[in-house]
Amino acid sequence: MTNVAIIGGSGYGAAELVRLLHIHPYAKLTAIISHSKQGTDFSTVYPHMNQIADQTMEQLDVKKLSETIDLVFFATPSNVSKTIIPDFLASGITCIDLSGDFRLHSPAVYQQWYQAEAAAEEYLHQAVYGLSEINAASVRSAKLIANPGCYPTAALLGLIPVTEKELIEPNSIIIDGKTGVSGAGRSLSQHVHFAEMNENVKAYKLGSHKHIPEIEQALQEYIAADIQLTFTPHIVPMTRGIMVTCYAKLTENITTAQIETIYHTFYQQHPFVRVRADGEVPTTKEVYGSNYCDIAIHVDERTNRLTIISVIDNLVKGAAGQAIQNMNISNGWDQTTGLQHAPIYP
Amino acid sequence: MTNVAIIGGSGYGAAELVRLLHIHPYAKLTAIISHSKQGTDFSTVYPHMNQIADQTMEQLDVKKLSETIDLVFFATPSNVSKTIIPDFLASGITCIDLSGDFRLHSPAVYQQWYQAEAAAEEYLHQAVYGLSEINAASVRSAKLIANPGCYPTAALLGLIPVTEKELIEPNSIIIDGKTGVSGAGRSLSQHVHFAEMNENVKAYKLGSHKHIPEIEQALQEYIAADIQLTFTPHIVPMTRGIMVTCYAKLTENITTAQIETIYHTFYQQHPFVRVRADGEVPTTKEVYGSNYCDIAIHVDERTNRLTIISVIDNLVKGAAGQAIQNMNISNGWDQTTGLQHAPIYP
Amino acid sequence: MTNVAIIGGSGYGAAELVRLLHIHPYAKLTAIISHSKQGTDFSTVYPHMNQIADQTMEQLDVKKLSETIDLVFFATPSNVSKTIIPDFLASGITCIDLSGDFRLHSPAVYQQWYQAEAAAEEYLHQAVYGLSEINAASVRSAKLIANPGCYPTAALLGLIPVTEKELIEPNSIIIDGKTGVSGAGRSLSQHVHFAEMNENVKAYKLGSHKHIPEIEQALQEYIAADIQLTFTPHIVPMTRGIMVTCYAKLTENITTAQIETIYHTFYQQHPFVRVRADGEVPTTKEVYGSNYCDIAIHVDERTNRLTIISVIDNLVKGAAGQAIQNMNISNGWDQTTGLQHAPIYP
Amino acid sequence: MTNVAIIGGSGYGAAELVRLLHIHPYAKLTAIISHSKQGTDFSTVYPHMNQIADQTMEQLDVKKLSETIDLVFFATPSNVSKTIIPDFLASGITCIDLSGDFRLHSPAVYQQWYQAEAAAEEYLHQAVYGLSEINAASVRSAKLIANPGCYPTAALLGLIPVTEKELIEPNSIIIDGKTGVSGAGRSLSQHVHFAEMNENVKAYKLGSHKHIPEIEQALQEYIAADIQLTFTPHIVPMTRGIMVTCYAKLTENITTAQIETIYHTFYQQHPFVRVRADGEVPTTKEVYGSNYCDIAIHVDERTNRLTIISVIDNLVKGAAGQAIQNMNISNGWDQTTGLQHAPIYP
Repeated sequence: MTNVAIIGGSGYGAAELVRLLHIHPYAKLTAIISHSKQGTDFSTVYPHMNQIADQTMEQLDVKKLSETIDLVFFATPSNVSKTIIPDFLASGITCIDLSGDFRLHSPAVYQQWYQAEAAAEEYLHQAVYGLSEINAASVRSAKLIANPGCYPTAALLGLIPVTEKELIEPNSIIIDGKTGVSGAGRSLSQHVHFAEMNENVKAYKLGSHKHIPEIEQALQEYIAADIQLTFTPHIVPMTRGIMVTCYAKLTENITTAQIETIYHTFYQQHPFVRVRADGEVPTTKEVYGSNYCDIAIHVDERTNRLTIISVIDNLVKGAAGQAIQNMNISNGWDQTTGLQHAPIYP
Repeated sequence: MTNVAIIGGSGYGAAELVRLLHIHPYAKLTAIISHSKQGTDFSTVYPHMNQIADQTMEQLDVKKLSETIDLVFFATPSNVSKTIIPDFLASGITCIDLSGDFRLHSPAVYQQWYQAEAAAEEYLHQAVYGLSEINAASVRSAKLIANPGCYPTAALLGLIPVTEKELIEPNSIIIDGKTGVSGAGRSLSQHVHFAEMNENVKAYKLGSHKHIPEIEQALQEYIAADIQLTFTPHIVPMTRGIMVTCYAKLTENITTAQIETIYHTFYQQHPFVRVRADGEVPTTKEVYGSNYCDIAIHVDERTNRLTIISVIDNLVKGAAGQAIQNMNISNGWDQTTGLQHAPIYP
Repeated sequence: MTNVAIIGGSGYGAAELVRLLHIHPYAKLTAIISHSKQGTDFSTVYPHMNQIADQTMEQLDVKKLSETIDLVFFATPSNVSKTIIPDFLASGITCIDLSGDFRLHSPAVYQQWYQAEAAAEEYLHQAVYGLSEINAASVRSAKLIANPGCYPTAALLGLIPVTEKELIEPNSIIIDGKTGVSGAGRSLSQHVHFAEMNENVKAYKLGSHKHIPEIEQALQEYIAADIQLTFTPHIVPMTRGIMVTCYAKLTENITTAQIETIYHTFYQQHPFVRVRADGEVPTTKEVYGSNYCDIAIHVDERTNRLTIISVIDNLVKGAAGQAIQNMNISNGWDQTTGLQHAPIYP
Repeated sequence: MTNVAIIGGSGYGAAELVRLLHIHPYAKLTAIISHSKQGTDFSTVYPHMNQIADQTMEQLDVKKLSETIDLVFFATPSNVSKTIIPDFLASGITCIDLSGDFRLHSPAVYQQWYQAEAAAEEYLHQAVYGLSEINAASVRSAKLIANPGCYPTAALLGLIPVTEKELIEPNSIIIDGKTGVSGAGRSLSQHVHFAEMNENVKAYKLGSHKHIPEIEQALQEYIAADIQLTFTPHIVPMTRGIMVTCYAKLTENITTAQIETIYHTFYQQHPFVRVRADGEVPTTKEVYGSNYCDIAIHVDERTNRLTIISVIDNLVKGAAGQAIQNMNISNGWDQTTGLQHAPIYP
């Protein structure tokens, strides 16, 4: 049994980790750390976990924790894990960070988009970007795994197969994202007050979302020229789910069927990516509560443009589920361990 | 391994059985029967089950099916299972019926509320009402289990402890139910067309819902006098979940804390019933996707009236989950087998 | 032209008053007062009112305001208007108070349910309870109108016709309310955070809601004996609308059709109450955005119990709309003036 | 008083026309025609209109109708009005068609996208595309007005100012649309069944939506070269509202503020278009129930790309509201007549 802890226990990322770890056969959740809720039972903050996860949340004590655990998940806001993770690494603890602190390689880029100082460069170098389907080999040997953001997970799994094959013009990429409201977290704001978010669609952070450099950096691996894309996130009146609609100019004449074949081949060893075909377009509800990423592609011959639709549950494949998938890979377990939940529908 | 089949494969009850059976360690789903969709893959009808349950749905052939399966779930509309179940019973197959065909003991009462002829009386006598927490002993030895309706499950688990103790006046009982829209099934109707059901609350079937005699019959077990209650169902703009708010006159002076103790004692051996206390009132989302039934009680000293709030996921504890719980009990397995899903929240 | 002001300009009650006053032919909104937002344009706080209501919100100055206005609406939280209204009354300004400060006649009852000191008794005596259909005569001559609460408006319009005729046993009344989330106001709370309120139903304030004494007091006018009823409010995942389902024991044998006739007669001079018949049950969406109250009644002969369904838009007939209806009555205008909006559907 | 009739009385377009005409001071609705519901009262089909619009729907009789009315609205499905309108025109009746039958000038293009034969060419030539803000002069003198589609209204009002000024590369235009479910109409379909549409986002008709040629044709007026754009519609879980997010490559260096000035100038005489500025991005709820179109623009200097956000209520400015605006223009009335409803919020 691997002993794991969660740091940042009061947010939705933590709640989802607790839900998923509950049926994991090899990992045992031994501590939930929360600065703001320390001393409170987890099931007092999240009553749905009554009799399932009643443990008391604790104040962080790195030294004590390091003696009992093998792996720690950080479900903290930006700019928290960067100062704590080095201490855990020093004790040989594997760290999986669901925040953005270690995702960007360049301190300057981090500074520009996060408006804060980056983590120390040696740790940025050490961090592996945990997009499980793409970087499994590096994840396997990593001690510090930067778990991808929700939008980047959906967008990258959708875009990488054609980017790698140079089938699209990199600087023609436009990503239009639609997220459920849980993506905004548990903190209160007028923006996501029910009476005003219900029956409403909102676009936000035009041209300034932190996930832009993250997506660009990951795509850059496949492209020589500098890539700069447009990404517009929208919030829609539902709790869970992300759909990204990606647009790009094709570099050659190719049919929908031919590209579908490329995707099927690309993902054939990857059980959590389901390439849809024959005109079937996935909806977000079809992956609800599960670790799947469903993808459909469409070639528009009139405009010679490719449209890619990619959907995930933002809290599972977009956060806690992929974190557990990375833990599985890191430990040499089958990557689907503890993640066999079928989507909940309807 | 126990081989099981589902009859009525295109509805939500079946879809939920398939989801839950997917991680059941001892039951294997070997056939999905659908009259309307025979020849179609299950995952074509329900794309969320792509690569999880791709089997082709079949036409019903009782004889052939009886040779390969041990247990069959009926997820059929009213008035279907009553003519098919006798044949399965003749072959020694255990039948769990999610429809209402075998829930009422009296053919006359069935006729009155269902406006149709009842099943043959010998089978009505043989059927055990599968409210798992209450009737486990009978379920264990039954070959024909009538799985309770969704509203009755929530209402009865809420009402039985005080009814048994004669703490409430039976004919003072009023049940006000609120259900998510999935309770109306998959068939299309103007009533549940999104544009008109969204941002809307509807009361329906005033004084005429089929679940009224079902609840009365189950409570009658504890009461000498004839019981007649009022039940008003409402549909609210969400997909899953039922809350029943039950009102009854108390027969003696008693405090909230004293009644809570009675409930805690009553349900202490029953992992799926969580009695909430200290003013905590459960919400439907706190049991979403799980087999839990959460209950809170409140004594109003001004009116000497008891209010009981009971919530379930209508498709899990109110249908497929309880059916699997009954299968577990029937097979001598731990009743929680394959049902350990924590609620999904948020 | 009558000059009016709104005090408490940042909440939903004020926003709805501004929307409705916008097309009122005889009332001119000359000032919006907001303590927390003074100096800010109304349309900055509520961008939907851009180019419709751009005026700057002001700090309250009773003296200055009294010189320019004829009537003031209070859309303030509890315990604000009670100290300000006396000054306006002294200047002869008509006051319509949407808060609960002047609704209860008895200071002791106010103290008990609001946990705060009541307004001075002379003003409580002077205040007229502005349930327009019932108290129009008193409203006409009042200077201080206590606009009813949202639940009481729906419940009382549903219950008064049979209470007046002594057709129901007063102490058998149970009211089960379902409200949209806007009823909780604009202030942020975890309770109504979108991700947790969506796809959820919640019961709250069991036995302790402030609207209980308000309903009891209004019904008491028709009944000699002391009345004590049970009311349980629920919040459902929609923005607007209230449905109350009222239950009561009938005192005599009477049919649904007979009671419908009583309601038709009772409300025939009242254009905003629509008595539905022939089994039609109103839904909340059927009054959305309008000042209507739709009512259906159902006699259950099995239990000799009456069920009354009454729906309103909580922000219109349950707040701002009725306030304007009262202003109309108070000024001798047709009560529907400026309130002719048909419901928005779907 | 102008006498008007509605043909196609059972759909949402008609229901919205009836709601808006109810407070129109100069137009009198004298007949509602419905093939499927003839003989039924309008308020039986739409109970929210009880006591507001109780008239009986009639079978179409062009001759009889022509004698009593001045103007007719067609709220019919595709391929209905094209055969009926010529008869009304022959009698000198003004026709406003909310369907797509007369929007496209080219019969071949109509045939290609609608998969049906186009209206007779002489009528296509006669029809004026009723985008009120752009074509008011032509609308004024037209007898046949093709009311624009919902997506095209939002997209064109957003795109025309920069297209006219040649600030964007025409063939770089990508439109990502998000619509509420009422856009799918009142006809039942699995697609918009509440239980499956709630908590879900769906993309549909990739590359094949009928609004593509409509948008291209209208933009083509401003551009010499052939224009071909990409449009992907999405359906989100709300009833009303459309947001289009338009992307295009800029042809020169220009700031957000400079483009905002262009929009302010372009729309300064147009009360229903509100250009938002200073980083304010409109949400769909901010125009709910009203005839406004709110627009925000954003220049991304990194990618030299322009993003335009445009929102409308699909049933008002996207259908019935603009139809009435066109009626107003056609009759020489102020275009806002009867359309002064402020948005409903929250």
